[in-house]
Amino acid sequence: MVGAGQLARMTYQASISLGITTRLLAERADDSAARVGADVTLGSPSAARRLENFAAGCDVVTFDHELVDVELIRALEEAGHCFQPGSDVVALTQNKRRQRETFQSLGFPVPPFQCVQTADEVAAFAGIHGWPLILKAAQGGYDGRGVWLVNDLAGATRILDQAAIHHFDLIAERRVAITRELATLVARRPSGEAVVYPLVETVQVNGMCREVVAPAPLPADLAVAAQALARNIADAIGATGILAVELFETNGEFLINELAARPHNSGHYSIEGCVTSQFENHVRAALDLPLGDAALVAPSVVTVNVVGDAAGSDPLDHLPLVLALPDVHVHLYGKAARPGRKLGHVTVTGTSPEETRCRARQAAALLTSGAVEETRP
Amino acid sequence: MVGAGQLARMTYQASISLGITTRLLAERADDSAARVGADVTLGSPSAARRLENFAAGCDVVTFDHELVDVELIRALEEAGHCFQPGSDVVALTQNKRRQRETFQSLGFPVPPFQCVQTADEVAAFAGIHGWPLILKAAQGGYDGRGVWLVNDLAGATRILDQAAIHHFDLIAERRVAITRELATLVARRPSGEAVVYPLVETVQVNGMCREVVAPAPLPADLAVAAQALARNIADAIGATGILAVELFETNGEFLINELAARPHNSGHYSIEGCVTSQFENHVRAALDLPLGDAALVAPSVVTVNVVGDAAGSDPLDHLPLVLALPDVHVHLYGKAARPGRKLGHVTVTGTSPEETRCRARQAAALLTSGAVEETRP
Repeated sequence: MVGAGQLARMTYQASISLGITTRLLAERADDSAARVGADVTLGSPSAARRLENFAAGCDVVTFDHELVDVELIRALEEAGHCFQPGSDVVALTQNKRRQRETFQSLGFPVPPFQCVQTADEVAAFAGIHGWPLILKAAQGGYDGRGVWLVNDLAGATRILDQAAIHHFDLIAERRVAITRELATLVARRPSGEAVVYPLVETVQVNGMCREVVAPAPLPADLAVAAQALARNIADAIGATGILAVELFETNGEFLINELAARPHNSGHYSIEGCVTSQFENHVRAALDLPLGDAALVAPSVVTVNVVGDAAGSDPLDHLPLVLALPDVHVHLYGKAARPGRKLGHVTVTGTSPEETRCRARQAAALLTSGAVEETRP
Repeated sequence: MVGAGQLARMTYQASISLGITTRLLAERADDSAARVGADVTLGSPSAARRLENFAAGCDVVTFDHELVDVELIRALEEAGHCFQPGSDVVALTQNKRRQRETFQSLGFPVPPFQCVQTADEVAAFAGIHGWPLILKAAQGGYDGRGVWLVNDLAGATRILDQAAIHHFDLIAERRVAITRELATLVARRPSGEAVVYPLVETVQVNGMCREVVAPAPLPADLAVAAQALARNIADAIGATGILAVELFETNGEFLINELAARPHNSGHYSIEGCVTSQFENHVRAALDLPLGDAALVAPSVVTVNVVGDAAGSDPLDHLPLVLALPDVHVHLYGKAARPGRKLGHVTVTGTSPEETRCRARQAAALLTSGAVEETRP
């Protein structure tokens, strides 16, 4: 696995059960997964020789992030190394503009968008779609970085200047009226078998996923339609492993927000909440092994992220408090506490969505800062 | 954790979620847990300096087996190191004679037994309790080793000779009419808090646990009585971490068979079958953290061990077959395949005990030998 963050850490845990040996390529020895893995290679996935040597020691290479050199992966594929997902899928997940164009051409629903380089182009787009609008870096953003809500041309010009200085492309998007943000996961094998996870609602705070509510509180026919859309996307682009599809719900319709071709924060609930976790199915799918059932095991499952508080307190110090709560599943990532950093998550299963969510929030707040009222970073 | 077998491997997995750093003392680099652990010290727990250095780097030391030098642990405790469970509990689990005597003195039910050194003593015991009877090595046996069913004095004499040559003590036990073999686990903290797991039925083949059926098919009042007995044992001996209590059911009553003061084969079902697994609760209890709920999450949970077949085939080769079955949870231990060796287990949850057990058996047979009919080693 390229990358050794918390996604790799939880994938590593899952692979232990299957008797699969997972080797990690970590940037730093104190990366979340590098702290627990038995076979860790230190190095950057952008260093050609390092990645080639790493790939040479693996049957299949997969990813816990998309910050990789696609041309390098393409060259290694041509030399016979197996990457799951492949370079084409990775390239697509890296580039929001290419995602939008691909989905538009395939007839999948996306928000109105346009590539913009000048203030005139932004003004023309705003003339049709109105202010405020969204500007997005085509590449590189995550957890809310690289996405700007701009109210007027002066605001847009500041972002255009940044884009020119730092050499990134911008797309303008209509600001759609979002009822909810939703997500689902597809686990798909190279041979084409796929399972689709339940549709979930994701709640963002400062652009970072804070809560995941499974199942999403939607009529069943809408959820089925969203799952079918995700499955169609996975098939159309040839995704392998876990593909996370983030959607906007707007006036009873769906628009594709973005993709991640790896285990995803919106799927952590599946560890305790589904028959087979996203991490186990990522391993199975990457190795082209039969996939496990993605059904929920309880009527309601809620995950709340533990994000470092303003005081920089360490969730490990609050472990006794939260373990004293009944039926709370704790996941800590072994990362040094810093304000605003994802340090772990809690998952609660139950029957009532409201009560389950309430308990998960309390547990996360307690783990974050030792108090039931969380101090936001 | 002292020892790096599959119990340490699964404990390691559980500790990752809690953000707890688990260091392993492994005899060999290819031990089951040593293959997956990030922090592995190679060495024997009987090497004083090695164990002392290991303990010096840990807040708490616990065990995945009881093949340790109790006097050495006692000396390290006196020097201020923390072992959970402590040396007194470890000493008790090492010695079947001491267990019998302790439980008898505490008023807990044990089979009629007597220490024997001579053929006359065995003959006298048989005069009261009849032939055949059981001879047991007081120390060192597990998985059926060190236990003999003897039919007559000639058979007993052969075992007595072995005991004299190899310097082990023997106890004679009445052969009780066993309706079922049962087990339960108690997780207990140094501060005294404890949770008791459901009573399960264990099915032995050639003295080795092959199947675990949860809950045991017994009237609820009997199960509650057995759980209370286990809890009382844990309190009486001051157990910490997981204590496994194996019981015989005989004519509606229970007799204590033996103890293990560590996660136990009879509790693997708890990974998917209980709110909190025995492995997570072992970590919590050893660190004196609040314990998790031990309740079942499904009406029926069955675990079947994967034991190396006569052909020495590798279960990893059969993984695609068994993963294609619905709702089977696979655990492989990363051990080289050998006939008769525990290589993994499968757990199935369901509603009907018969159907759950049938599916678990089929899955284990398939994983063991690639065929639904298992070839026994």
